[in-house]
Amino acid sequence: MQLIDDRTGIERLTRDECLELLRDQQVGRLAVVSHGRPLIFPVNFAMDGEAVVFRTDPGTKFDAAVREMAVSFEVDELDVERHEGWSVVVAGRAEEVVSDSHRARLKHLPLRPWAGGGKDHWLTITATNITGRRLTSPR
Amino acid sequence: MQLIDDRTGIERLTRDECLELLRDQQVGRLAVVSHGRPLIFPVNFAMDGEAVVFRTDPGTKFDAAVREMAVSFEVDELDVERHEGWSVVVAGRAEEVVSDSHRARLKHLPLRPWAGGGKDHWLTITATNITGRRLTSPR
Repeated sequence: MQLIDDRTGIERLTRDECLELLRDQQVGRLAVVSHGRPLIFPVNFAMDGEAVVFRTDPGTKFDAAVREMAVSFEVDELDVERHEGWSVVVAGRAEEVVSDSHRARLKHLPLRPWAGGGKDHWLTITATNITGRRLTSPR
Repeated sequence: MQLIDDRTGIERLTRDECLELLRDQQVGRLAVVSHGRPLIFPVNFAMDGEAVVFRTDPGTKFDAAVREMAVSFEVDELDVERHEGWSVVVAGRAEEVVSDSHRARLKHLPLRPWAGGGKDHWLTITATNITGRRLTSPR
């Protein structure tokens, strides 16, 4: 089943389609609210079931902004030549992984920091809402 | 001059480098705060000098969330094979373009909506802050 908005031509993706697209990606953009203003950070991530997992350095601006906060996480693939593509947004709360057994399990994920600096805090976003949209160019 | 963080290997880009990268891109991600939560939308855009310009449909969730709000706008190019790339973030306020002469000037920008729906509201983000980072993989 496709849910397509007649006015815009944008197809709404199902939750399962969104999860499949998330599992295919390695980088996304995380948005958080800090002092009432939105911040965006590109992050590399992996999926653990339906949770987004990423790593931070303790004490950084990024770490402070993200922990225990309502966040949105976005992935997309956009074709600027064809004017088409898709995007998926996960809304949820970022929580630090504190249990040893949980951390041990996450260490098997294909999640290596791109930048230096250890990044030994593991955070997960448990999704409260996952939405996705696909725009296909008229042929 | 390069400003490189010894710990992370991340190079800070100058404002001019950021503007040059912004001018090369056609899509970015806009983050806004709505009811205390961050929202992210991919948008296609063009630069008008140092201002980010994009179009919305009146009355949409997107339109409501963006107008007169503190926003962040991000563009990036990330190479998932080489674990390198750059990102630029513009922080500012989104304002609707109401003057006829300003609209007439913006209509010459290479800015065509990807989706249907008219999108006849023009908005600009005047940057209060532009930051950029580049991560290069060790050879």
